[in-house]
Amino acid sequence: MANQGSGRRPKYQRIAADLRAAIKAGEYGPGDRVPGENELMAAYDVARMTARQALGVLQSEGITEARKGAGVFVRSFRPLRRRGIQRLAAETWGSGRSIWSTDIEDRVLVVDRVEVGERAAPVGVAEVLGLERNAAVCVRSRRFVLDGKPVQLSVSYLPAELVAGSAITREDSGPGGTYARLAELGHKPVRFREKIRTRMPSADEAELLSLSSGTPVVHICRTAFADGGRAVEVSDMTLDSASYVLEYEFDA
Amino acid sequence: MANQGSGRRPKYQRIAADLRAAIKAGEYGPGDRVPGENELMAAYDVARMTARQALGVLQSEGITEARKGAGVFVRSFRPLRRRGIQRLAAETWGSGRSIWSTDIEDRVLVVDRVEVGERAAPVGVAEVLGLERNAAVCVRSRRFVLDGKPVQLSVSYLPAELVAGSAITREDSGPGGTYARLAELGHKPVRFREKIRTRMPSADEAELLSLSSGTPVVHICRTAFADGGRAVEVSDMTLDSASYVLEYEFDA
Repeated sequence: MANQGSGRRPKYQRIAADLRAAIKAGEYGPGDRVPGENELMAAYDVARMTARQALGVLQSEGITEARKGAGVFVRSFRPLRRRGIQRLAAETWGSGRSIWSTDIEDRVLVVDRVEVGERAAPVGVAEVLGLERNAAVCVRSRRFVLDGKPVQLSVSYLPAELVAGSAITREDSGPGGTYARLAELGHKPVRFREKIRTRMPSADEAELLSLSSGTPVVHICRTAFADGGRAVEVSDMTLDSASYVLEYEFDA
Repeated sequence: MANQGSGRRPKYQRIAADLRAAIKAGEYGPGDRVPGENELMAAYDVARMTARQALGVLQSEGITEARKGAGVFVRSFRPLRRRGIQRLAAETWGSGRSIWSTDIEDRVLVVDRVEVGERAAPVGVAEVLGLERNAAVCVRSRRFVLDGKPVQLSVSYLPAELVAGSAITREDSGPGGTYARLAELGHKPVRFREKIRTRMPSADEAELLSLSSGTPVVHICRTAFADGGRAVEVSDMTLDSASYVLEYEFDA
């Protein structure tokens, strides 16, 4: 672990850079234990606080995770690369593929805790969908579990009168999902807006997403618009922030 | 504060909805104290835990903030609506306006802690910019303070040979900023990619951004691409998550 960094950076950052490079080079693989405070203190001749700061850098970057009493380990879960615009392209769901198919590569996705039903629209949702207060909406709740790790809770709302009788009201909405069905119903989504906020999780969210402490959640509220600007779906998503890199790529 | 919510929702959510509606209606304005646990317990005849959960909902949504010993107050800082795609449109910086002009509306933006210099490219940056390891980059560091609240730390990296002698190497990069200057140099950005991650802040970041405890930061890494796909800038941004709503709107 020779230090090749710039002399101007603080020492803990140089130690962190060494560790990061060693992990990147495969010297420590997923799930491997990395040197702890005592080992870094000896190897770099630094104070405990400096070693701790260096380990803190990698942990805050999601590269490593501390397991109480056992040490610090390379995270074995590879974050999901969520290409926001590409995944929602009409050619994806229009050809019967799921939106998730562009995210998960060769990984195993399980959808559980599926609940589909009808209820009165929450105030904020009614506003966005342009519905009367307490108008009926179809609600689709799901949890997404990737490689055994829960990564997202999702709740979608659609005007009940719009989707009545379609597969959207069933647990399995069919090939291409909700957006493909909306297209068949004459309400094809042509535009999407995603609003992203970040906060610490509630106790419920932490449990449902198996979050380690100190892990924020990302909240994405997506609205799907049909031709003419009518909002046809609002989707509230709560993501384990450590499981995701969100990516948006667009022209200037 | 009559409860008009659905009877199926948990009680704390209905109380939170009432408070949210009252704040929205202006019954409690920015900086005002809202009813605390004791008052909610009495008004709704609920246990302390229920009142606490209700207040927790609003706090986690960034609508209110707790001040130790003083109570719970309506946040007086209105989050910044950052329209990711619109703000980077070539017509903005091409016409001499700053990217920020689309974000800040009528608010007061101060840019401080400006440092511009040259140094060896960090490993990750060199990779993205297609530079040799340790090649020289122009580094522009800034802090953005909106209405007196620090909201973002930003560090931009550009290939030093590309920008040598231009206003990009000076503190004030001129009308339209870095992207307008790159265009003049024949390296007009035509495409952008933003990668978003979230994590808890380091002690330094918490101090520089005046974060209240339990507030995550959002890390955005933007790459600007010129015609032909050459990466001409990498920008590392660290945002106070409570100060921002990120928004991306795009066609299906």
